[in-house]
Amino acid sequence: MSDNENTPTLKPLVIAGREYQSRLLVGTGKYKDFQETREAIETSGAEIVTVALRRSNIGQKSDEPNLLDAVPPSKYTILPNTAGCYTAEDAVRVCRLARELLDDHRLVKLEVLGDERTLYPDIPATLEAAKTLVDEGFEVMVYTNDDPIIAKRLEEIGCVAVMPLAAPIGSGLGIQNPYNIITIVENAKVPILVDAGVGTASDASVAMELGCDGVLMNTAIAGAQHPVLMASAMRKAVEAGREAFLAGRIPKKRFASASSPIEGVIR
Amino acid sequence: MSDNENTPTLKPLVIAGREYQSRLLVGTGKYKDFQETREAIETSGAEIVTVALRRSNIGQKSDEPNLLDAVPPSKYTILPNTAGCYTAEDAVRVCRLARELLDDHRLVKLEVLGDERTLYPDIPATLEAAKTLVDEGFEVMVYTNDDPIIAKRLEEIGCVAVMPLAAPIGSGLGIQNPYNIITIVENAKVPILVDAGVGTASDASVAMELGCDGVLMNTAIAGAQHPVLMASAMRKAVEAGREAFLAGRIPKKRFASASSPIEGVIR
Amino acid sequence: MSDNENTPTLKPLVIAGREYQSRLLVGTGKYKDFQETREAIETSGAEIVTVALRRSNIGQKSDEPNLLDAVPPSKYTILPNTAGCYTAEDAVRVCRLARELLDDHRLVKLEVLGDERTLYPDIPATLEAAKTLVDEGFEVMVYTNDDPIIAKRLEEIGCVAVMPLAAPIGSGLGIQNPYNIITIVENAKVPILVDAGVGTASDASVAMELGCDGVLMNTAIAGAQHPVLMASAMRKAVEAGREAFLAGRIPKKRFASASSPIEGVIR
Amino acid sequence: MSDNENTPTLKPLVIAGREYQSRLLVGTGKYKDFQETREAIETSGAEIVTVALRRSNIGQKSDEPNLLDAVPPSKYTILPNTAGCYTAEDAVRVCRLARELLDDHRLVKLEVLGDERTLYPDIPATLEAAKTLVDEGFEVMVYTNDDPIIAKRLEEIGCVAVMPLAAPIGSGLGIQNPYNIITIVENAKVPILVDAGVGTASDASVAMELGCDGVLMNTAIAGAQHPVLMASAMRKAVEAGREAFLAGRIPKKRFASASSPIEGVIR
Repeated sequence: MSDNENTPTLKPLVIAGREYQSRLLVGTGKYKDFQETREAIETSGAEIVTVALRRSNIGQKSDEPNLLDAVPPSKYTILPNTAGCYTAEDAVRVCRLARELLDDHRLVKLEVLGDERTLYPDIPATLEAAKTLVDEGFEVMVYTNDDPIIAKRLEEIGCVAVMPLAAPIGSGLGIQNPYNIITIVENAKVPILVDAGVGTASDASVAMELGCDGVLMNTAIAGAQHPVLMASAMRKAVEAGREAFLAGRIPKKRFASASSPIEGVIR
Repeated sequence: MSDNENTPTLKPLVIAGREYQSRLLVGTGKYKDFQETREAIETSGAEIVTVALRRSNIGQKSDEPNLLDAVPPSKYTILPNTAGCYTAEDAVRVCRLARELLDDHRLVKLEVLGDERTLYPDIPATLEAAKTLVDEGFEVMVYTNDDPIIAKRLEEIGCVAVMPLAAPIGSGLGIQNPYNIITIVENAKVPILVDAGVGTASDASVAMELGCDGVLMNTAIAGAQHPVLMASAMRKAVEAGREAFLAGRIPKKRFASASSPIEGVIR
Repeated sequence: MSDNENTPTLKPLVIAGREYQSRLLVGTGKYKDFQETREAIETSGAEIVTVALRRSNIGQKSDEPNLLDAVPPSKYTILPNTAGCYTAEDAVRVCRLARELLDDHRLVKLEVLGDERTLYPDIPATLEAAKTLVDEGFEVMVYTNDDPIIAKRLEEIGCVAVMPLAAPIGSGLGIQNPYNIITIVENAKVPILVDAGVGTASDASVAMELGCDGVLMNTAIAGAQHPVLMASAMRKAVEAGREAFLAGRIPKKRFASASSPIEGVIR
Repeated sequence: MSDNENTPTLKPLVIAGREYQSRLLVGTGKYKDFQETREAIETSGAEIVTVALRRSNIGQKSDEPNLLDAVPPSKYTILPNTAGCYTAEDAVRVCRLARELLDDHRLVKLEVLGDERTLYPDIPATLEAAKTLVDEGFEVMVYTNDDPIIAKRLEEIGCVAVMPLAAPIGSGLGIQNPYNIITIVENAKVPILVDAGVGTASDASVAMELGCDGVLMNTAIAGAQHPVLMASAMRKAVEAGREAFLAGRIPKKRFASASSPIEGVIR
């Protein structure tokens, strides 16, 4: 696909030195069974799959079904996350456990939550836990709010990817503050992935059109009426958004006719 | 792709009794040359290609390059349109000419414009021309504003598809009034295709997520910095939006926690 | 109030040659009793009060309470409207009745509805009724959709004010398509008043900030939990929006720092 | 103004134990001269006026014009702010200086900025400075981002008012994330005032309609083409928004007709 020699190339996503063709990352919660989990994730094309250690068995409980049978590490990059942790200590402890369970696995998704209602991050605790984990050799992908200053701080601490929320976890509201997301992207030297808040396909496209490097979601797929079909939609939406970003969209104008700028008119 | 026996099927788009796998319709204007036109349209996956008779040569001028060499009727359904017509008479005349040039071809896209600045339709003239064309045996796909009453009227006249604008032609603003579009869709017994105003991939997804049967665009692809790459993005965006619509998105909530409705809170 | 000699003057609204200090027009429906009607309208500061002849008694029924006792024509300009009419004939008939009842009163608000669900106007019937009424010497303020071409057509027919909807009647959704409203305002030589769809104070301000000459509302006040307090809010909101429009707002920028335009960035 | 005995009362704003009738707080920067400053502030009705010690002379420089001649402390509550401070130490130092200059004045507005481009707050430094200042007996009104967790933390530290940004300082973009603002308001036991980002009158109304206790602005007034007229607009807009909030707006519906909810339809 090349309209001329200047056509942008579709490069892989690089996180912590590894390359991924897919820019869609998915979770494993809320599916009705492992069969649906497996099918949806396969259809999504995701190569990185995040697992909540607090909720999923990846070997801690030897007498229960193991999620990794449905999502084998041989096929996917497993990304253990600290969902359900409300303190830095707790989150650090969960990451250490994951490392043990997964043979010195270092890639983790850090989230330290601020309260149970909003599931917003606790930013001071997130900064603290990120420092500790980076010092201990973890490769930290970090869930954060959409504050550009904090996003930069997390990058400076040494996180390998910064993951601002689009909207509250599980809300399906889509990107609430695109200006913040774009500012985070402009400032970043590590990949920026929207995490949380995506509700439908266009939300994922919008994230990518803003220049994000990827999108992580769980509820939007697992909670849809038909998760496997939604997984297919999301795969295409992320690709569409990435390609549209690279293709260089037409500017917005009030009218096609000459001299009809929108700036200063309304929004 | 089926998560269970109830998974919705991806049915073809049916217009005037013919089936199309693609729900993306494209125009032929504004490309830099026929080579780019051909490549972009092929990449878009479109099966219906609209041609402005006032601007493009499809045989009227035997000594000039013929657009149909780049977009052969053997491969595409050619949809002659009346772009540039400002009266009902004018639009009807152009349709008759198309019918002659294309061997009793009956499928046309009617647009009667209201003024040169906005390129909004002239609704009374559109209604009049639609009646005449339907009476003469044309299969009329009709460009209209987003007024649900007018859309229904055009269906009742006998148009085979109704094509409300998302925003002004060439503006790239995306869907300005989703409530109107969804109301048109709810009321319709013929296909509803968003025509005009799409700017980037997510706009196309949004149109499909509202339940539209298809999207028609030209500038968003041809005017992009890299038209062929944008054509690929649009193909995926339309598919993603359609699948997301059928997959049944999660409801919007303020928070994932129980009882956090958004209605009545803000918007 | 003058910061210098160039400060814009707050001019009266002129409709059909009469001057009004208030730019807020209100309806009389849905109040719990005439006492509340009187108090809310007085608090709103409105000078033009619209009355639905199909629903309110202004003298047709001599044995029932007369709305004009609560809203006396000596104090207010009564604006009879054709709410509930679904044909041009019906609407014209109601206007003629109003003229009789109100001593050769000529100022009317024309609405011809398209269906009972949306309460959108029937545009062809509206155009027809407007022509008839103008020919018969009525001063026609006309409810219409937000199509700029139709708005201009109604002005050309001779309507004294054009009243596009912001959103469906009674929806409280606020202005759905500000680009259409601003285009109507730019093209107009008669007053443009937003009619229908206002939900709260900021919606009324937004209408005025777009350059509208006034706002008409009923449900937003009468349906509020505290109608009289909402009437006060709306009075201030309309004045605030008008003053902000004249005061010349700061341009939108991404940041206060130099060179941070928003155009082309997101929306 | 009372429609019945249940009508909400318009109570004063209470900050640090003092009552204010006005809920609009204004700055003093960017006016063309002290005369315009005085006139605009008087027209705004503001009772609390914030002053950037880094930029304005309130006595530090005895040989220069003193801003307090235009905005006398006998008439206004002066709110010294730390605009231009990029570290906690710096901000604390400026507050101490203000206390000296203003006779043991304790009410200050704390802002610790994160970078010069966005003027977003540095949240960790803001938390640190807030703690220090509260410990030293200051009454701290604090500029913050719109993160609900951080807003609560600042309240818990002992700040007397929390002031989330609506959008970047000086941007005029209006409230970018109303869900965050409303969540902050719901959680709060101290006054919440939107600070930064207001562009025009309706933006101020929206802030108040979300339940905020007040709005602080500077550029939106001082940078308008006609500052004094905009000051009048803002005064009315804040009052309108407050009254609309208390009056209880109608719910949003797709249509006035029964059973037309918006939830789950589009946004």
